[in-house]
Amino acid sequence: MKNPPSLEALISALRCLPGVGAKSAQRMAFHLLQRDRDGAARLGDALLQVLQALRHCERCNSFSETPVCALCASAQRDPSLLCVVETPADLLMLEQAQCYSGLYFVLMGRLSPLDGIGPKDIHLDRMLERARDVAVKEVVLATNFTNEGEATAHFIAEMLSARGLKVTRIARGLPVGGELEHVDSGTLARAVIERRAL
Amino acid sequence: MKNPPSLEALISALRCLPGVGAKSAQRMAFHLLQRDRDGAARLGDALLQVLQALRHCERCNSFSETPVCALCASAQRDPSLLCVVETPADLLMLEQAQCYSGLYFVLMGRLSPLDGIGPKDIHLDRMLERARDVAVKEVVLATNFTNEGEATAHFIAEMLSARGLKVTRIARGLPVGGELEHVDSGTLARAVIERRAL
Repeated sequence: MKNPPSLEALISALRCLPGVGAKSAQRMAFHLLQRDRDGAARLGDALLQVLQALRHCERCNSFSETPVCALCASAQRDPSLLCVVETPADLLMLEQAQCYSGLYFVLMGRLSPLDGIGPKDIHLDRMLERARDVAVKEVVLATNFTNEGEATAHFIAEMLSARGLKVTRIARGLPVGGELEHVDSGTLARAVIERRAL
Repeated sequence: MKNPPSLEALISALRCLPGVGAKSAQRMAFHLLQRDRDGAARLGDALLQVLQALRHCERCNSFSETPVCALCASAQRDPSLLCVVETPADLLMLEQAQCYSGLYFVLMGRLSPLDGIGPKDIHLDRMLERARDVAVKEVVLATNFTNEGEATAHFIAEMLSARGLKVTRIARGLPVGGELEHVDSGTLARAVIERRAL
């Protein structure tokens, strides 16, 4: 006794979602079919629609429906700053923090030799070309502070410094509201080593 | 700064999946678009396909692509037994246990007055009609042992007993391999109360 073929196909397709195994895929499929057929139809349409409509911005490499995305096309942004992030989600986080008025380059990944992800897979050639724009005065590296993010930042910094560009890295340290007693010792050690003059 | 409209539509549509909030919906959307566009296309097609193809079996009310599902149409099954379960997932679990050779009725839910789910919402009229089939000698209630599942079983038992049908309930007790020391006291109490002669 198995599920009907179209239902098995849905359950198997749902497993392409990150963190969704066999049991949750089945639960999701039953939920959609029993409780939310409208939602299922909307999701199906949205998936096929987004695959049609969405491309990568020619300038920043983030997702965009137009050749150049709204942010890159904006006259409000400071073209002398170029911030390099790993993913569009990171870009959105920075925008929500309302702390940065420059432009972006989204790598869509990070260097990860163990996963076979090298410089070509994260569009470093395009990033380099973008950073060579005469308007760019400083490249701000905002990759994650994971091993892979750090390695990526280091690699990019070497590459850009060799070409005489000013490269900076966002600061590491205690979080706002953070207490020394509750922070991990790695972060605390970094905060001491990278202390700055007041 | 927001995501492009088609991407926002996808993120919002992904939230119809159970247990998926704003953050995970965004993570899923980025994953599909960055790493698994084929999977996204397959999922989109599978959703629209299943909505087209899938209906409810006229006999057991479970999902089926044909008017009567393969299980109900099978000559191998014992028509004198009718097992009532809450969901198609429960039906599959029983089939995997290979302990039951009768037929099923799937309520597609449980009585839940707090959620506004009454007898009509779980197709009790159709269940009753199905149980009245002259071939049916015993109705086995296999709803969950949650408060709602128990209430549902109780309600159905009253309804069917009034019509002179034999109604049974699957057993409660310790799990196979279970140790008294590690079982919750509610289950242990039930196992003692519902002890059976050897």
